[in-house]
Amino acid sequence: MGRKLRMGMIGGGTGSFIGDVHRKASSIDGMIDLVCGAFSSTAEKSIASGKALFLPEDRCYGSFEEMIHKEKELPADKRMDFVAIVTPNHMHFPPTKMALENGFHVICDKPVTLTLEEAKELIGIVEKSGKLFALTHNYTGYPMVKQAKAMIAKGDLGKIRKVQVQYLQGWLATAVEKTENKQASWRVDPKRSGIGGALGDIGTHAENLAEYITGLKIDELAADLGRFGEGRTLDDDGNLLLRFENGAKGTMSFSQIAAGEENGLAIRVYGEKGSVEWSQEEPNKLITRWVDKPKKIFTPDGNDLYSEAQTQRIPAGHPEGYLEAFATIYRNFATHLMDELNGIKTSNPDYPTVYDGLRGMQFIYASVESDKQNAKWTKI
Amino acid sequence: MGRKLRMGMIGGGTGSFIGDVHRKASSIDGMIDLVCGAFSSTAEKSIASGKALFLPEDRCYGSFEEMIHKEKELPADKRMDFVAIVTPNHMHFPPTKMALENGFHVICDKPVTLTLEEAKELIGIVEKSGKLFALTHNYTGYPMVKQAKAMIAKGDLGKIRKVQVQYLQGWLATAVEKTENKQASWRVDPKRSGIGGALGDIGTHAENLAEYITGLKIDELAADLGRFGEGRTLDDDGNLLLRFENGAKGTMSFSQIAAGEENGLAIRVYGEKGSVEWSQEEPNKLITRWVDKPKKIFTPDGNDLYSEAQTQRIPAGHPEGYLEAFATIYRNFATHLMDELNGIKTSNPDYPTVYDGLRGMQFIYASVESDKQNAKWTKI
Amino acid sequence: MGRKLRMGMIGGGTGSFIGDVHRKASSIDGMIDLVCGAFSSTAEKSIASGKALFLPEDRCYGSFEEMIHKEKELPADKRMDFVAIVTPNHMHFPPTKMALENGFHVICDKPVTLTLEEAKELIGIVEKSGKLFALTHNYTGYPMVKQAKAMIAKGDLGKIRKVQVQYLQGWLATAVEKTENKQASWRVDPKRSGIGGALGDIGTHAENLAEYITGLKIDELAADLGRFGEGRTLDDDGNLLLRFENGAKGTMSFSQIAAGEENGLAIRVYGEKGSVEWSQEEPNKLITRWVDKPKKIFTPDGNDLYSEAQTQRIPAGHPEGYLEAFATIYRNFATHLMDELNGIKTSNPDYPTVYDGLRGMQFIYASVESDKQNAKWTKI
Amino acid sequence: MGRKLRMGMIGGGTGSFIGDVHRKASSIDGMIDLVCGAFSSTAEKSIASGKALFLPEDRCYGSFEEMIHKEKELPADKRMDFVAIVTPNHMHFPPTKMALENGFHVICDKPVTLTLEEAKELIGIVEKSGKLFALTHNYTGYPMVKQAKAMIAKGDLGKIRKVQVQYLQGWLATAVEKTENKQASWRVDPKRSGIGGALGDIGTHAENLAEYITGLKIDELAADLGRFGEGRTLDDDGNLLLRFENGAKGTMSFSQIAAGEENGLAIRVYGEKGSVEWSQEEPNKLITRWVDKPKKIFTPDGNDLYSEAQTQRIPAGHPEGYLEAFATIYRNFATHLMDELNGIKTSNPDYPTVYDGLRGMQFIYASVESDKQNAKWTKI
Repeated sequence: MGRKLRMGMIGGGTGSFIGDVHRKASSIDGMIDLVCGAFSSTAEKSIASGKALFLPEDRCYGSFEEMIHKEKELPADKRMDFVAIVTPNHMHFPPTKMALENGFHVICDKPVTLTLEEAKELIGIVEKSGKLFALTHNYTGYPMVKQAKAMIAKGDLGKIRKVQVQYLQGWLATAVEKTENKQASWRVDPKRSGIGGALGDIGTHAENLAEYITGLKIDELAADLGRFGEGRTLDDDGNLLLRFENGAKGTMSFSQIAAGEENGLAIRVYGEKGSVEWSQEEPNKLITRWVDKPKKIFTPDGNDLYSEAQTQRIPAGHPEGYLEAFATIYRNFATHLMDELNGIKTSNPDYPTVYDGLRGMQFIYASVESDKQNAKWTKI
Repeated sequence: MGRKLRMGMIGGGTGSFIGDVHRKASSIDGMIDLVCGAFSSTAEKSIASGKALFLPEDRCYGSFEEMIHKEKELPADKRMDFVAIVTPNHMHFPPTKMALENGFHVICDKPVTLTLEEAKELIGIVEKSGKLFALTHNYTGYPMVKQAKAMIAKGDLGKIRKVQVQYLQGWLATAVEKTENKQASWRVDPKRSGIGGALGDIGTHAENLAEYITGLKIDELAADLGRFGEGRTLDDDGNLLLRFENGAKGTMSFSQIAAGEENGLAIRVYGEKGSVEWSQEEPNKLITRWVDKPKKIFTPDGNDLYSEAQTQRIPAGHPEGYLEAFATIYRNFATHLMDELNGIKTSNPDYPTVYDGLRGMQFIYASVESDKQNAKWTKI
Repeated sequence: MGRKLRMGMIGGGTGSFIGDVHRKASSIDGMIDLVCGAFSSTAEKSIASGKALFLPEDRCYGSFEEMIHKEKELPADKRMDFVAIVTPNHMHFPPTKMALENGFHVICDKPVTLTLEEAKELIGIVEKSGKLFALTHNYTGYPMVKQAKAMIAKGDLGKIRKVQVQYLQGWLATAVEKTENKQASWRVDPKRSGIGGALGDIGTHAENLAEYITGLKIDELAADLGRFGEGRTLDDDGNLLLRFENGAKGTMSFSQIAAGEENGLAIRVYGEKGSVEWSQEEPNKLITRWVDKPKKIFTPDGNDLYSEAQTQRIPAGHPEGYLEAFATIYRNFATHLMDELNGIKTSNPDYPTVYDGLRGMQFIYASVESDKQNAKWTKI
Repeated sequence: MGRKLRMGMIGGGTGSFIGDVHRKASSIDGMIDLVCGAFSSTAEKSIASGKALFLPEDRCYGSFEEMIHKEKELPADKRMDFVAIVTPNHMHFPPTKMALENGFHVICDKPVTLTLEEAKELIGIVEKSGKLFALTHNYTGYPMVKQAKAMIAKGDLGKIRKVQVQYLQGWLATAVEKTENKQASWRVDPKRSGIGGALGDIGTHAENLAEYITGLKIDELAADLGRFGEGRTLDDDGNLLLRFENGAKGTMSFSQIAAGEENGLAIRVYGEKGSVEWSQEEPNKLITRWVDKPKKIFTPDGNDLYSEAQTQRIPAGHPEGYLEAFATIYRNFATHLMDELNGIKTSNPDYPTVYDGLRGMQFIYASVESDKQNAKWTKI
């Protein structure tokens, strides 16, 4: 393939957080050009956002519908190859469906949809479309997460017995949604967030990370959700007991009212022979503990990594961060898509899919159900 | 008071872990002399243990009953002032009762008794005796734990919303109780440990630490206990949801099968304005996080400590450890006892009491009950 | 300015380390497109490298001379705006000189030239050209480095008294230059590296970092260089005493034979009132210590940062790394260049200049001279 | 030996820092009783100090001369076995000499004497006396220091190439000697401290630690001493280049004006195959790095320790600290002394000796000499 992929973006206007992340992540590896966008809900705002990104005015659209229609009519060597969807949750499903049905591949932020029903419906749409669909559970893009996964898959830790996963933020400790904080206002609004608050926003990352690393499904959970911020109807905190399909037990704790925490996603997994510990805020080390050996600390591109974990772009000691982990999702998606376009079949590309998205929605719904019944054990 | 206190010890023969800890902890501050002991179940072994401790043969007894009887008959300027009880759990209540009823003060290892009934009975015995009783929940002896407690008591964190406490060990990850490991064999034996395994051994420390630091009682809990070691009837792992009297929520996780963990007692407490984090394996720092300020790290005898936390013996940067924290329980008990002997009344001496012991037993029983009912919410 | 900047690259063919870093760093912020390159010493290899980067064949050149000539003849709306020079040290000066003299702006890797004489000559060339010149002392791009610099500049630490800076790597601990390691072979070769080995490669980063953060010049130094690798003529290790212009004293230690180290650039600066500590391998925290207050830890985009340090792209707790720090040099250079092209004058753009490059060469020469005289004090 | 050893103390009156440390350290292991003391320069003060320690009045002396004379006349089963000397530096030699010449063993704080001449003289006195003499370079008592030493001695790191040692404190950053700080006032006074300030107080610890761990002698040094505190005639800061007997090179940095530092003694040693890193403020881990393996972290009583390092009293994860490391010096000295008294010969007891003391004084004198000559290389 002699050219870069062409990306269109839905959402992500000036001042957005996650839209900017997607743009930077997609550009690091030099495989993708942003060529168009429906960045905002009006043409005017969309054009202003696009200009700041050096896009021509005629590729800045006032709605995703307009973008999909117009791009479809462009010549094949000009129109976008795929869309990146970076809107609030309620605006994931409609553009995803329309893009897929009009022949565009999709990369979408999580949670995959607003409702469980949409997620189920989306499975069929993706399968029928024959197009690629990636979900940006970006934390699985870190090399040390991949090393942990590989170690467990190869049996280094023995049978898994115990899992602790947590995702602690503090930015909603005070009522910032009553200020002009756009990030906060949609997240506490069920119409735009869905039935989960922190649960959908970050609990799903914790669920995805735990299942990705362990290779195990959570079988059932008991959830005690909190609504600490005054007037909030959605959860802003949660504590869960977990039971995994293989008999392992665990806890999950997430919060957006954990005062002073920044972005504290962390996991510990204990097997019969040893354990792994990883924390997103210090992503470049994987602490491993052993029944009969000293602690060993793995680092990206350092010694003794499994090939699955050799995904860092630069030598050991040159830390990669959040954007690079995000970029690895994009890189793997782009590689897969280039292969597709070149007629090469790939098996098991390493990025989250629509099935991971469905799993996340099932987790949200099971947790809300369990919480309603006073933390009753509920199957996912 | 012109003399050191005289201590007798029950249990703690050669090779014991906790007996040796009590001896070292009691001697650091130069306030206590070990003068006698019933170290083992036979006179012969007890004498051998006593000799290694440089005790005269006639103060080494073959049973606690003998020790209490004989010491009572010694002249007042020679006989022991108090006993330290460092036996397995089933041997806490009988010597404690007898010592108190014969006029000796008591310092006892935790959990306070084998059964909840014994603990309830002990309350009355202590109260009737008029003697001092201390329980060695030693982790509350760390200066940084006291700083955390003081900060919360003074409202620095605002109202408490969330608590995470864990106590992770890995030494029972394999079936060491089938080797000659004495520490392991009694801990997995309900006759000597009681109805809780890891629950009683370390879960009670986690419970005590959480309530000590927050100043809040756990109101109810949902417990999911694990028995991972083959053939074990007592729990060796547990995950709990917690609800506190003030509406705060939390999790507890303890384990003795967390492969590779050494002695991982750790706690995080989140209030409306900030939070504290402390870990026993790095006890000399208290990490505090704030809604609107950078992280601040407190150290023992460093800057800005509340007076309650200025308990370290040596300057900042000279780390104290486990033995010193343990010694602080002894020091506070000894100070109280010397004051008593000198006719000085002390209010609120800072060491764990029989009421903390009862609380621990109630916690054990509530957890076991909850677990039997599939993690049903159970009041402590 | 309605368009991205167009970059040409000299060096950085397939398999290069630093060329790839420059490409990724230049693309993160969406301000720069790579449009052409003289990636290798033959047209064939250069085209192969360019193709892998999705460049058209006619913009892949066989030499920097050819590139500069041909690009100059392209129409203004197509030709490159600036060149990025990412070759070994001996190939910094010639293309820089030619590019500047032909009207192209330059961003160049460090050390700025092969010899001190070249560096001095380059000053005049840059000044005469009226073009922009940036040097990628990338470690000054980290937000926490900027916070440290700002704190010192504003007097938060009081007068600076003591500086410790070190840059420890271990990748040359064994004789990797005798394998096919391209990175190693030119670095141990005086013809391509110049008179400094580790001194030029990483010592200059340490020197630059210390002067950038403190705002102070090193006045004199005493250098003891080591050549531990068998057969090496250039230093692979060095220890220095430092004296700063204001009377502060310090040490520098760098090494490429510090077995097991990855990329350990770290600095501590002590003033009368407090101190700062920063380490490149954990770049997202700045530890500050105070005479009379607890340690405070700053994080990017966290609380209480000076405006100079608010350069992180994403919220606190989402770690940025090496590439983003590198990208910040590019972003500041690109912003300056766009302003220039738009006729806007910028004062004090925040990126390293040719004068920093000269300073680095003077540091190398002073160190080598001092070492020859058995670590005699030598003025920079 | 059926009894504890009996210790007399010289210095260490109420309010002293190091006297209290010696008392606590000597009591932890239950081998030593404090039986008498010349705690202060008057009988009255000495008695007051002794009473607070529960000593009888007739064993509290007004001078060391009186104590040595009177104790010598006591019956053998009552008099002290050895003296602990915990006075300021100028009062080390006189009581040591007198005690040894009157048949008492000695354990003495460092530096061993006020002057190099005294140290040389002391060698002869010790040798002639046939008594034991221990010097409390307490930092060599940490288990992880012993593990580092053992690893190097056994060749695990290969030939040593590079050493970095530092000892950073900040308590003299301001002019505390002008307040009533007793610790500060004698340390800045050449009459009581000798020719080294921070150099003697903490530089000697750094020197001792480096030579203990590496098993190598420093051959020559270049020292640049600082006197930052206004009016100070002794150094309060120092930076040194080091060359070791085997060709290794290194740096030393010590300071008592490193604002905000507590007790930052730390060392890194690099060999051909790997390296070790240890820091006194987190003494319970030894970080090891390797050319071709991930970092490995050793902990006391954890896995894979050499027997030399299995000196911790309690299980892994139960941190020991400064007092226990100090106590290990006492324990090894007491064990040796008990063996002597029992007629058992010990080879190579593991505690610092008078020869280490001489080495420390030579280091002080070489450093001061080098500094006077503008950091000229000077042999130790």
